Amino acid sequence: MADTSKHILLMDGPDNKGLIYHVTGVLFRHGLNIIRNNEYVSPSRQFFMRTEFEGNFNTDVLLNELQTTLPPGITFRINPKKKKNIVVFVTKEHHCLAELLIRYAFNELDADILAVISNYNVLQPLVSKFGIPFHYISHEHRSREEHEEAILRTLRIYDPEYLVLAKYMRVLTAGFVQHYPNRIINIHHSFLPAFIGASPYRQAYERGVKIIGATAHFVNNDLDEGPIIAQNVKEVDHRHTAADMATEGKDVEKIVLSQALKLVFNDRVFIHENRSVVL
Amino acid sequence: MADTSKHILLMDGPDNKGLIYHVTGVLFRHGLNIIRNNEYVSPSRQFFMRTEFEGNFNTDVLLNELQTTLPPGITFRINPKKKKNIVVFVTKEHHCLAELLIRYAFNELDADILAVISNYNVLQPLVSKFGIPFHYISHEHRSREEHEEAILRTLRIYDPEYLVLAKYMRVLTAGFVQHYPNRIINIHHSFLPAFIGASPYRQAYERGVKIIGATAHFVNNDLDEGPIIAQNVKEVDHRHTAADMATEGKDVEKIVLSQALKLVFNDRVFIHENRSVVL
Amino acid sequence: MADTSKHILLMDGPDNKGLIYHVTGVLFRHGLNIIRNNEYVSPSRQFFMRTEFEGNFNTDVLLNELQTTLPPGITFRINPKKKKNIVVFVTKEHHCLAELLIRYAFNELDADILAVISNYNVLQPLVSKFGIPFHYISHEHRSREEHEEAILRTLRIYDPEYLVLAKYMRVLTAGFVQHYPNRIINIHHSFLPAFIGASPYRQAYERGVKIIGATAHFVNNDLDEGPIIAQNVKEVDHRHTAADMATEGKDVEKIVLSQALKLVFNDRVFIHENRSVVL
Amino acid sequence: MADTSKHILLMDGPDNKGLIYHVTGVLFRHGLNIIRNNEYVSPSRQFFMRTEFEGNFNTDVLLNELQTTLPPGITFRINPKKKKNIVVFVTKEHHCLAELLIRYAFNELDADILAVISNYNVLQPLVSKFGIPFHYISHEHRSREEHEEAILRTLRIYDPEYLVLAKYMRVLTAGFVQHYPNRIINIHHSFLPAFIGASPYRQAYERGVKIIGATAHFVNNDLDEGPIIAQNVKEVDHRHTAADMATEGKDVEKIVLSQALKLVFNDRVFIHENRSVVL
Repeated sequence: MADTSKHILLMDGPDNKGLIYHVTGVLFRHGLNIIRNNEYVSPSRQFFMRTEFEGNFNTDVLLNELQTTLPPGITFRINPKKKKNIVVFVTKEHHCLAELLIRYAFNELDADILAVISNYNVLQPLVSKFGIPFHYISHEHRSREEHEEAILRTLRIYDPEYLVLAKYMRVLTAGFVQHYPNRIINIHHSFLPAFIGASPYRQAYERGVKIIGATAHFVNNDLDEGPIIAQNVKEVDHRHTAADMATEGKDVEKIVLSQALKLVFNDRVFIHENRSVVL
Repeated sequence: MADTSKHILLMDGPDNKGLIYHVTGVLFRHGLNIIRNNEYVSPSRQFFMRTEFEGNFNTDVLLNELQTTLPPGITFRINPKKKKNIVVFVTKEHHCLAELLIRYAFNELDADILAVISNYNVLQPLVSKFGIPFHYISHEHRSREEHEEAILRTLRIYDPEYLVLAKYMRVLTAGFVQHYPNRIINIHHSFLPAFIGASPYRQAYERGVKIIGATAHFVNNDLDEGPIIAQNVKEVDHRHTAADMATEGKDVEKIVLSQALKLVFNDRVFIHENRSVVL
Repeated sequence: MADTSKHILLMDGPDNKGLIYHVTGVLFRHGLNIIRNNEYVSPSRQFFMRTEFEGNFNTDVLLNELQTTLPPGITFRINPKKKKNIVVFVTKEHHCLAELLIRYAFNELDADILAVISNYNVLQPLVSKFGIPFHYISHEHRSREEHEEAILRTLRIYDPEYLVLAKYMRVLTAGFVQHYPNRIINIHHSFLPAFIGASPYRQAYERGVKIIGATAHFVNNDLDEGPIIAQNVKEVDHRHTAADMATEGKDVEKIVLSQALKLVFNDRVFIHENRSVVL
Repeated sequence: MADTSKHILLMDGPDNKGLIYHVTGVLFRHGLNIIRNNEYVSPSRQFFMRTEFEGNFNTDVLLNELQTTLPPGITFRINPKKKKNIVVFVTKEHHCLAELLIRYAFNELDADILAVISNYNVLQPLVSKFGIPFHYISHEHRSREEHEEAILRTLRIYDPEYLVLAKYMRVLTAGFVQHYPNRIINIHHSFLPAFIGASPYRQAYERGVKIIGATAHFVNNDLDEGPIIAQNVKEVDHRHTAADMATEGKDVEKIVLSQALKLVFNDRVFIHENRSVVL
């Protein structure tokens, strides 16, 4: 049960005098060394803490002692510091997928890509270059529920911790999403909440904006309304057609998605009241 | 009639083969020197050109020759390169107004501030430091029409070329706006079209965005829907309350407004299909 | 001796197991409530902590208990959370000074401007609008030492906590600087370490850069080499002359200086190995 | 000799009254349609113009007429609008190369990658995924001249229009560079001119900068001193080690390099007095 690798303690709940003191006391008495500690208290007095520590410990004993020490409302868990297992969803656009594949191939993703699922087969050649299983699950001639059921069957093979929607252009039902609560990350090609829904670059062009953006967010039941993890933007001007904006936007999308995944895969993102807290 | 100062020729209309050739030919035959020339043709084949030139010329003759040379659908005008006359509207917030006053005091605004109009008197002390007339025109105990009529009476004294809404927190009626078509510039404290209307920072906080912004735009009949001139943004994170966002956002607002005004006051902004073309 | 206002505990020194635990324990036993706590451990194992707390306490008792609890190498101090007293230095350019004056006038500076000192008198009219003492201390017909001695005599009247060089275009001697160790903040009009020294925009233009910047930093003995507090940048292109860059750069300079001052005046900046740690 | 595809006319030389008029007149008389026209006159009165046009023409006749019409000091050329042929140089880092390979594979590069040359063989597996020749030309046991001679022999096979140094970590001699004047593009991992030479992220970390950057530039005889094409930046803070900065910087490097190449490959970049003019 002893473990010498690095771990991360994640806590959140109502703020209370002495919380940091009590938690750091438990770790101190176990001889564990805090490498990095971040905490945040929201204006509504919600407490969040992420503590990266190293040293040997007995998990059951440590968890039990934390349980005893902490006030009842606080939830906490201890994660080993290690790569996550993910499945990537795509449709036809390659840029986000390629970014993830390259990072994965060079060990820069903080995750293992177990498989890629797509409702089209156009990206199969790209995925096959990297020796990763590609599952072409067409939505044609299937109801939405049948299609999602087929996807869920495939996911059961891999049992991923996170699903990454790397320009997957289909809306997921609430029934599907509930299988992966706060474990589905999407990249939306606009600066949310501007231009929710389809053709955001076309909308951006029509509105004549001078800046375009992209948003990585968790997926919940409402389209494009889940907690935002990261956003970034890029200047455009009147010379950009909607197609030019889409082209320029791809660079933003793939980088923002990668940045968001880095945060999530390193257990740095808490969710509270539909907002993310990044520690 | 001769004039040796710099002038700007502004043209727009349906594109036609040889437009640049014909116009530059007229200027060449008049012995005028082009200092800066910018043109743009939209995907819908609308032609825009801004030509800054210097030299002596007879205005009537030049305009007449352009009229004869150009195809019928093209509109054009020649503006002398000089400061614009403006009136600034404010409510209670000082930051945009102060930015304009300082720039004006140090001859950096490309405009003369003829007067400041406000529906509150809180900014009178600031304005008076700079020796500019301040008109306190309260909206209380007045219908919207009566209030706007009182403002229009004051504006008639100054006959400004542009109105600048430097955080003027009242909606203007279509009746008012039609007196100044494409001549009213507003600063909105969000990255439009996100967070139209009231309390955009509160909305931004509730949505958990990671970037806030500001938008300078022309005012037309629809609230916050006129052509965008300039936008800028600033990163925020979960630690920013709505009030913090408002504080941080002020720096963006005042700079974006100043940048947009610089473009407008230098005759660099065309409007077409509710979008701005900046040459 | 009791004090109910907010305070900030600032600590730094070699890292040690249990430091957070011991310090938060002292505060907990005194019944003090931690509002915000930030710590950082550098790769060289230097520990930094900034703890904002509220509650009644006896300063001597608390300091004594911290002294007893903490390992010998740790330095710490407790600052009341309040505005700093500053003196601003300028030469001829107004934009940074005006920014500070406006923020001060509207209670947004986290500091009181006690006086402005300049080696020219051109900005006296601006300063006088805000009712702040202006000291014109010319450097002409004086040796550098005589000039600085005259400045020091004036500073003794005000006894400021910080000096802000808001485009003060003279180099300060080591003899002068040692009176205000880590208490002089300068704004340099380049993205340091690019373009150290005079005429950075001229240098930037000659080099053909596509981005200009500004740097707020502490002043130590070496010109433009002190710890950097904040930097920001702005895109330019080939159309910008050196003068255009200087004009555009002013907006960056004044905002970066304000942001840096906000950090310093809120006791958020530590200095270590000529780098700043911002908590 | 007739040609119906799009072409680009590139001109530069001393400014002269009527230049635009004369050139657009030639195109007008040939019945050619200007799709996009950009010109710029530098403060030193150097004239630059890029004219994209379409229509049928006889190249010899058109060039001859331009020669006759234009003043003697003006140089000009007409390029067909088409992809460039390039060879990419790398050492061990993959991120810029991978970015180019992916763009090439999906027809987004505006160039054909004829081959990749490296002084190490570590990136061979990546390149081979894309079916592009990889030439491993080690510098070991060779003088610099022998190494470059071996490279030149390989280049003669491909006769590329441009060489792209996608993190090629060896300095090229003047003798080598003169074979490709203004045709070698490098990505430097700093915001030039800050941190010229080796280990820029190490230097950036030591200096404590708050923003890191990358610079794409032409290579001439002096190390990192050629004309800058594009730059971009990213915020960092005290928590970033030199290694973290290098990791974060990679995202900036690959995007800036791609943006610069897009400009160069579309004939949008002029060079004048060691600065780039981008039209």
